[in-house]
Amino acid sequence: MAQDLTLLWGTGSPPCWRVMIALEEKKLQGYNHKLLSFDKNEHKSQEVLDINPRGQLPSFKHGDVIVNESYAACFYLESQFKSQGSKLILDNPAEQALMYQRMFEGLTFYEKLNAVIYYSWYVPEEERHDSALKRNREALATELKLWDGYLQKLGDDSYLAGRSFSLADVTVFPTVATVFRYGLSAERYPHLGKYYTLLQERPSIKASWPPHWLENPEGQDTLKDI
Amino acid sequence: MAQDLTLLWGTGSPPCWRVMIALEEKKLQGYNHKLLSFDKNEHKSQEVLDINPRGQLPSFKHGDVIVNESYAACFYLESQFKSQGSKLILDNPAEQALMYQRMFEGLTFYEKLNAVIYYSWYVPEEERHDSALKRNREALATELKLWDGYLQKLGDDSYLAGRSFSLADVTVFPTVATVFRYGLSAERYPHLGKYYTLLQERPSIKASWPPHWLENPEGQDTLKDI
Repeated sequence: MAQDLTLLWGTGSPPCWRVMIALEEKKLQGYNHKLLSFDKNEHKSQEVLDINPRGQLPSFKHGDVIVNESYAACFYLESQFKSQGSKLILDNPAEQALMYQRMFEGLTFYEKLNAVIYYSWYVPEEERHDSALKRNREALATELKLWDGYLQKLGDDSYLAGRSFSLADVTVFPTVATVFRYGLSAERYPHLGKYYTLLQERPSIKASWPPHWLENPEGQDTLKDI
Repeated sequence: MAQDLTLLWGTGSPPCWRVMIALEEKKLQGYNHKLLSFDKNEHKSQEVLDINPRGQLPSFKHGDVIVNESYAACFYLESQFKSQGSKLILDNPAEQALMYQRMFEGLTFYEKLNAVIYYSWYVPEEERHDSALKRNREALATELKLWDGYLQKLGDDSYLAGRSFSLADVTVFPTVATVFRYGLSAERYPHLGKYYTLLQERPSIKASWPPHWLENPEGQDTLKDI
């Protein structure tokens, strides 16, 4: 089964990492994969464009079936390998609602993170404004407080949708890990910090940890004062 | 059943419209709803904030279960009312993959649309640049060509994931309708134009058509040259 799956990915990319966690959770180890370099622009190579007209990573195939968007790939894997590995969609209606809710709020979280850490990458120099970056940082701080509060309300050792690991964690954990990689203070956001520590030990997450983070454990300090 | 459902919404908002189409498709007519005004800032009212700390519409409740994010609400409704009304998640693996793929590409489409039509709403005057708006318009044109091509490839009278209406249409149609409301040329994007015409006749879409579009059928021409 796993040999029908092919993932083209980049290290440290939250969208790629989501798919890799899902593959681990669904016990699909042994899938084909190829690590490409964003720095060398390999995500715009013909090999990627053949699968993904957007020239983005992840690019993902199951046999002839292509499903590149990271959330789409996670839903697809859960559906196609429903009885294998972890059950990633919760049955209880209230937990399921919370799971979906947090998954999609997670896209806002990810967007607000990118608007800070990649500001000068996204915005050409002549269009940059200190006022915009300041506003983006404030919006990210508001977002972080929201998530810290969500976790506080659920209590210690909770996952994002309650007592069970779910697609909410598969999709949002890579963003949480990235905020700490960029220097977020676990003292200032203690519940996010505890969640990060808890999830770090999960086998699917250990197995898919970004290799360049392992090679170079020192991250940036962009978010240390946020 | 429907009386346990409450939707707070704004007219012409694609996220609100997605949930309304899903409610119609799942035969949940008779749900409670309240139309609020973005212009009067009613999405920041206490009534909304009690359900939705982000102060956004839609805000949606099923009994005590809150699920505000539009995609989350659509997934939740399909799951909780699986055997009622239209089946919105396709079973065939290839169609299902395409459905998920288009749903999540739909978020990019929506974002690129907003970056054009709401540019001066999102960006403070002193931070606006003609170069940025021009780039946003080009990115939207590229996006529109991609979707027109997707539909061309599927052939006439197709839905976004093939022969069956699905969550891809529930979530992306409101964006398609909005591009035409803002003056997109159906001559320049003929497959998107045909899709728009086809879906307009669907009962769930007719029943949920934005009331202020009905009152004032004349839209804007922001996108006429795109």
